[in-house]
Amino acid sequence: MKFERKDLPVGTPVVGMVGGGQLARMTQEAAIALGIQLRVLAEGPTVSAAQAVADAPVGDYRDPETVRRFVAEADVVTFDHEHVPTDLLRALESEGVKVRPGPDALVHAQDKAVMRQRLDTIDAPAPAHQVVASRADVDDFAQRIGGFPIILKTTRGGYDGKGVWVAKSVDDPAVDEAFAADVPILAEEKVDFVRELSAIVARSPHGQAVAYPIVESVQVDGICVEVTAPAPGLSPDRAAQAQQTALKIAGELGVVGILAVEMFEARDGRLLVNELAMRPHNTGHWSIEGAVTSQFENHLRAVLDLPLGSPAARAPYTVMVNVLGGDVEDMHLGLLHCMARDPGLKVHFYGKAVKPGRKIGHVTAYGDDLDEVRERARHAAAYLTGTIDE
Amino acid sequence: MKFERKDLPVGTPVVGMVGGGQLARMTQEAAIALGIQLRVLAEGPTVSAAQAVADAPVGDYRDPETVRRFVAEADVVTFDHEHVPTDLLRALESEGVKVRPGPDALVHAQDKAVMRQRLDTIDAPAPAHQVVASRADVDDFAQRIGGFPIILKTTRGGYDGKGVWVAKSVDDPAVDEAFAADVPILAEEKVDFVRELSAIVARSPHGQAVAYPIVESVQVDGICVEVTAPAPGLSPDRAAQAQQTALKIAGELGVVGILAVEMFEARDGRLLVNELAMRPHNTGHWSIEGAVTSQFENHLRAVLDLPLGSPAARAPYTVMVNVLGGDVEDMHLGLLHCMARDPGLKVHFYGKAVKPGRKIGHVTAYGDDLDEVRERARHAAAYLTGTIDE
Repeated sequence: MKFERKDLPVGTPVVGMVGGGQLARMTQEAAIALGIQLRVLAEGPTVSAAQAVADAPVGDYRDPETVRRFVAEADVVTFDHEHVPTDLLRALESEGVKVRPGPDALVHAQDKAVMRQRLDTIDAPAPAHQVVASRADVDDFAQRIGGFPIILKTTRGGYDGKGVWVAKSVDDPAVDEAFAADVPILAEEKVDFVRELSAIVARSPHGQAVAYPIVESVQVDGICVEVTAPAPGLSPDRAAQAQQTALKIAGELGVVGILAVEMFEARDGRLLVNELAMRPHNTGHWSIEGAVTSQFENHLRAVLDLPLGSPAARAPYTVMVNVLGGDVEDMHLGLLHCMARDPGLKVHFYGKAVKPGRKIGHVTAYGDDLDEVRERARHAAAYLTGTIDE
Repeated sequence: MKFERKDLPVGTPVVGMVGGGQLARMTQEAAIALGIQLRVLAEGPTVSAAQAVADAPVGDYRDPETVRRFVAEADVVTFDHEHVPTDLLRALESEGVKVRPGPDALVHAQDKAVMRQRLDTIDAPAPAHQVVASRADVDDFAQRIGGFPIILKTTRGGYDGKGVWVAKSVDDPAVDEAFAADVPILAEEKVDFVRELSAIVARSPHGQAVAYPIVESVQVDGICVEVTAPAPGLSPDRAAQAQQTALKIAGELGVVGILAVEMFEARDGRLLVNELAMRPHNTGHWSIEGAVTSQFENHLRAVLDLPLGSPAARAPYTVMVNVLGGDVEDMHLGLLHCMARDPGLKVHFYGKAVKPGRKIGHVTAYGDDLDEVRERARHAAAYLTGTIDE
């Protein structure tokens, strides 16, 4: 590493983050402010976060020796993604490494079957679900919950809509596709929902926890495209219920760091847990400008067992819209128009080359008037993406 | 460099900043968000900003070839300090390098005699002043303005109270000390002031400019220790006058980037320009959390000729207090208490080893009640510094 302990002021915390995506990149903004030295185990020499930190060794997070070397001098190791093998994390923990979140918590974000089973035992509300191993299992499950359509998901490895299928009947080609994935498959009730919500909490090793305001997220083809904080029209009771569910999950599972609980607000009134993530999450990016303490800062504070910062909102409404790759290759050209049009707009680029549909950045607007704030954020994202030209 | 253009997304702006202090370090936070690649010409391999950027070559900013090599691939070169020789900057500019601020502007922040002369020609209000070359000159100047005490300053190279003396008589040893400095000396009226104010503006090459709210700064022994935004009790007319003075100076001098104009609010009612700085400034650190767009982001936007962001305040009051090195060597130990006491506190550490009196960080608090906000920020700075223990 370029920066060893002797090169840093006495007491400087050193945090190793496995994965060099935009979550690590944005974590670096918070680390710089707090005087924390963030190191990244990068997938390649030029990935998003490698551009933004002093030490970003390239290595395979599945290789035990690589990961061991990476964490050797760090105070704590944490994650930009959930793909590090659980067994490797267990081995590191048994060797005395502070793995945060630890493998016993993280496995619930890695394996959806484990997660569903565990949430059932703590009475966290969830869609009906069952691990299925055959077409007959799929049919049985569908009949049990009142028929098709149902959802099929890989228990491991899915993200941004990948590894998720809707099966309209037992003969749907989606069933074959799911079983071809060669990992255990989870069947779930297709929830008829009004909207999706997300509950983000931060939790420390000593058990302190804070809950961010509940947000509304809009997903298109399984990818989060827009987040509104707080979720408009959500009653205080409902919001508290969602926060309490997330805090309970964080506590019961022993999560350290940020936990994002994605939920369905079902048409029949249920509030159901959809997915868990144990890292800063797309539905929390609004907090960079929209909250007193960003999710990235609170993730760092949590993994270092520092007291957590206030998650309170700083504005009546904050709206974040993802910037997805489109036809425009040079994203910076669009800044001239967007920044001139809206001096209050906050732009975040991830240092990622444009590919169609790839998350390459996000924009945030905040203010008193929800319609106006939404228009500002949506306009900027659409303009940068190239779907509108004025 | 580790990151050449080919390693970055198409259109990524590359900004070279000369100097690796905390200003460059905090600029990196804004650069990461905007997808700007910031490179730092560092004084040593482990300086403040070198810990926080991917590319921080070490080199002497006074050496033309070193600086040429550093700026070769950057879109623009800007500064963490004002010490790069004016002639070198002129040479770079004549070679086609975008130097922002340019040498014709920057010389006014480098040389106080040039600054005073130029401000006189644009009728910017200033303390009485005169370049002095002898004891007799000092005496003549003092008699002209009504007697001692007067201020003596080196025209170049002073900062944080260094290179400034108060002479109580013509025989004061301070006079000898000043002349021993071996650079031209400026004599100035010792202004009887109520308080010090600072006007920060950002200006682009195409002439767009924005003015931050006028702040009150408290200096002890020539070092800024506390800033309150906005300056309490300053009338709107007075604030507008201060902003207009700063905007006029920025325009007349052709400043690009941040210009900080430190002013005296004199007891006789005059508002007098004390010092100029052409870079993000200690009296603007409050803007990281306190303004819609931080001074660091607006500096980057200005030097890249991007439209400027709103400088509007986000809270009724924001108070920043510097954390100076004291008896405590491990500054991070104090975080436990400070963060637990105040979940809304924002801490900034610069990655600098503790030395007595050295600026090693700052804290910011904001809110509706000035007394409470001040108490929070002052308490945290004093606790971290070690001057209080509860």
